Amino acid sequence: MRLALGVEYDGNPFLGWQRLSKAGEGGQESVQAALETALGRIATHPVATTCSGRTDAGVHARCQVVHFDTDAVRTPRAWMLGTTTHLPPSVCVHWCQPVPDEFNARFSARARHYRYSILNRAVRPALHRQYLSWELRPLDAGAMHRAAQALVGEQDFSAFRSAQCQAPHARRDLQRISVERIGDEVVVEVQANAFLHHMVRNIVGSLLEIGAGAQDEAWIATLLAERDRTRAGPTAPAAGLVFLGPLYPPEWGLPAGVTLPP
Amino acid sequence: MRLALGVEYDGNPFLGWQRLSKAGEGGQESVQAALETALGRIATHPVATTCSGRTDAGVHARCQVVHFDTDAVRTPRAWMLGTTTHLPPSVCVHWCQPVPDEFNARFSARARHYRYSILNRAVRPALHRQYLSWELRPLDAGAMHRAAQALVGEQDFSAFRSAQCQAPHARRDLQRISVERIGDEVVVEVQANAFLHHMVRNIVGSLLEIGAGAQDEAWIATLLAERDRTRAGPTAPAAGLVFLGPLYPPEWGLPAGVTLPP
Repeated sequence: MRLALGVEYDGNPFLGWQRLSKAGEGGQESVQAALETALGRIATHPVATTCSGRTDAGVHARCQVVHFDTDAVRTPRAWMLGTTTHLPPSVCVHWCQPVPDEFNARFSARARHYRYSILNRAVRPALHRQYLSWELRPLDAGAMHRAAQALVGEQDFSAFRSAQCQAPHARRDLQRISVERIGDEVVVEVQANAFLHHMVRNIVGSLLEIGAGAQDEAWIATLLAERDRTRAGPTAPAAGLVFLGPLYPPEWGLPAGVTLPP
Repeated sequence: MRLALGVEYDGNPFLGWQRLSKAGEGGQESVQAALETALGRIATHPVATTCSGRTDAGVHARCQVVHFDTDAVRTPRAWMLGTTTHLPPSVCVHWCQPVPDEFNARFSARARHYRYSILNRAVRPALHRQYLSWELRPLDAGAMHRAAQALVGEQDFSAFRSAQCQAPHARRDLQRISVERIGDEVVVEVQANAFLHHMVRNIVGSLLEIGAGAQDEAWIATLLAERDRTRAGPTAPAAGLVFLGPLYPPEWGLPAGVTLPP
């Protein structure tokens, strides 16, 4: 039988989502390796997981969705609580649900959404620093929001793709992006059918140049048209990024937080 | 000259605010010791600080206010940025301002306010776990809020005072308390002229019993009247508690976040 899980993690202690062939430096491991080990202890057989969207080292997830197959008979609650017991404090399983064999955490997802949080003040953060990046130049969130709207639509995102990106092409459908100031934080939220490697962090890096007044609002459209990664802003740090989760069609009957409106 | 500072910290790595005569276990130190060492490097003389309200091990601060005296001549910005450079990542100084010699961070404060955040779901937190406590029993935040109103006013808080509390008496003026559900978090905010040792965490511990349905709403008033710590709920964990800051009369001209309305 096939099961889907909602997995939450603090990316700070991890090398990223993906299981690597060899362990990382300083004893760090991947979220996938930690999860598969914990699931294997409940299943009493080796477990292989497929995720909805890989995250890089230091990137967090509010609801990473994974699926796996097992012949072990446990209640969803036993999978959720038992697996969490065997996970480090930085990871937990917050729901578990049986799904049809046709469900695939990666290929059934119609969209993914991310949040990027920037503390905008003269001094680096202490409280919540594990989940923030920091910009000391005063940011114009309104200008960032207006500039970002040029990214909406199905377009070639080569300008915001890392050199290591392995995707066969750079066309993605960016469905919505917003930039909002909440007190001394500037929060970017973005949803697309799928993302290229470093795409959110590269978009944020360029929006920061506009917010700080180093580039004008039309610069994003210029970068997009040029399709040249070397012209865009730097990659924003991982700590500010949270993968909020994928979105699936309502037919799969998954929790509301990962389901598209009907 | 006398200076006031706004200090933010993540309490997780610390033994608490107060400098101790000997270093703690595992190389842990106090926030005060870290701050005085950093200030001393900018002042080039030993610095002694007075704080607005001591916090326990593991308790955070959004804006702890301290004052100290120095004859070193630096701009407020130099104190703020220079001191932060010498602090560990879990502490920063986010403002600095000259104050009259009559200002005292502790005695000039008319009120203090705290926030306590509880994640209320079946599974422990991973994301933001450094700043949350966790309750798996479903909580009725409305019942907690109504029950808490019995605490408002100038009263004897012996029922919510730790055995180690050194205050000469237990009368405090609790000015307001609210309990609100925000998604799967239950947030308690409380303001009083001053607090007894463990008072917020002991109040939260008792409110949790009411929220979970183990006690009825009238129980808080009964506990208050009995003045017996042994009858109240357990002390809630430190991680969920943030000292939002003290409040001073407007005459001192301190930042808006630590100033009472005129």
